Amino acid sequence: MLSKKIVKYIQSLSHKKFRDEDGAFIAEGPKVVGELLDQKKMECTIICAEKNWLLQNESLLKGVLPANIFETDDHWLKSISQLKTPNKVVAVFKKNNSTEIGNLSGKISIMLDDLQDPGNLGTIIRIADWFAIQNIICSENSVECYNPKVVQSTMGSLSRVNILYTDLQTFIEQNKNIPVYATTLSGTSIFKLPNINEGIILIGNEAKGIHEDLLKLCSKQITIPRLGHAESLNAAVASGIILSQIVANI
Amino acid sequence: MLSKKIVKYIQSLSHKKFRDEDGAFIAEGPKVVGELLDQKKMECTIICAEKNWLLQNESLLKGVLPANIFETDDHWLKSISQLKTPNKVVAVFKKNNSTEIGNLSGKISIMLDDLQDPGNLGTIIRIADWFAIQNIICSENSVECYNPKVVQSTMGSLSRVNILYTDLQTFIEQNKNIPVYATTLSGTSIFKLPNINEGIILIGNEAKGIHEDLLKLCSKQITIPRLGHAESLNAAVASGIILSQIVANI
Repeated sequence: MLSKKIVKYIQSLSHKKFRDEDGAFIAEGPKVVGELLDQKKMECTIICAEKNWLLQNESLLKGVLPANIFETDDHWLKSISQLKTPNKVVAVFKKNNSTEIGNLSGKISIMLDDLQDPGNLGTIIRIADWFAIQNIICSENSVECYNPKVVQSTMGSLSRVNILYTDLQTFIEQNKNIPVYATTLSGTSIFKLPNINEGIILIGNEAKGIHEDLLKLCSKQITIPRLGHAESLNAAVASGIILSQIVANI
Repeated sequence: MLSKKIVKYIQSLSHKKFRDEDGAFIAEGPKVVGELLDQKKMECTIICAEKNWLLQNESLLKGVLPANIFETDDHWLKSISQLKTPNKVVAVFKKNNSTEIGNLSGKISIMLDDLQDPGNLGTIIRIADWFAIQNIICSENSVECYNPKVVQSTMGSLSRVNILYTDLQTFIEQNKNIPVYATTLSGTSIFKLPNINEGIILIGNEAKGIHEDLLKLCSKQITIPRLGHAESLNAAVASGIILSQIVANI
């Protein structure tokens, strides 16, 4: 039976302040919770789920203490869910403590300059996972990757991608040997680039693009050719198009 | 001054039933409203905006009857807005009555089989506008293009793309000369296709993909190569990647 204390604790994790304090975050729904449990990279500390889901997913629950597994009815699921329509299971996971990323040599990585929309970040994490991109470097003002809306839109890819929050200018200066390709509206067409085997693809803020100071440090500006009239593309869509062309067109 | 009647009328347009009855929809924010006014393809019947926005956009308001323009304070803007944070202007436009699309010969078009997420449809309309794709054909169960969340995520591209809701099976049978490329997880890599100058790119439902019956009518299955582990890509991202490769890589 869920105690009021646990309900309050789970509800508190919808706020960044409490996620930071406790180093934990919420994941919801069979797909996202199932993948995080299956990957075993993040410790699951609470599972609240409908009886049927628990029965059908016994094998996934082996790593979770029985005392932390709660059979939960509709009413309680609604009170702890961040979704409009709760989806069978709500779980709490410990954040990944290691925020280190590996060596970027010989790899394509993603860098995000103050990306704000949680759906965009989640979708970009999912794109990275699709194209086997291991590392995403985010500016400190980018949306937090443990925001519930980010977690949901990763569709389970969250624990398969390394995400580092850091000062981008310092990071670029410390990794001078890795070329940075800035995505802008006026660069070289991505379809006219030579093959790129190593580099950082930099995507800017949804409204303001890439900071001027940062742009100066980039090796090259690249762009998706515009044939029509839209002023811009959604940041996640632009990331997908550019990465597909650089990483998968081989 | 906004009357209660007008407030109620605008609020009613958040429901599809009333949008259908009245043939009208809501748009919000300087970007979306500004573009729709500027394109002059849809009649604007009500504008509620902050004083500053009205002063700065006099030229855009020429086609709107002065009696239908309301200077609105924060309090009233909140009561009619669909957004969490209202953004300066809320407007009502008449829907495009012509739901006809032109000849598809020699063009790339988009077809959506029961796309459900409003953000995805809005983003696909924006992608179509970026790549100068004129026509989107939606199954009758796809999300409505005048849903407020769709309108917002088009970022103003809504009136530059023709959108037809129809029975897809009948449509394909009536347009047998136009090849249909179904986006699936197991088709030919989009990077290995010959140049395509004419055809319909078919995107399936976010969870269920393309209906079996429809798939049988398609000329070819195409796919975005997966290098990593994500089970799928977001539908709008997949549309962007495929269209960029077919339309813009020339």
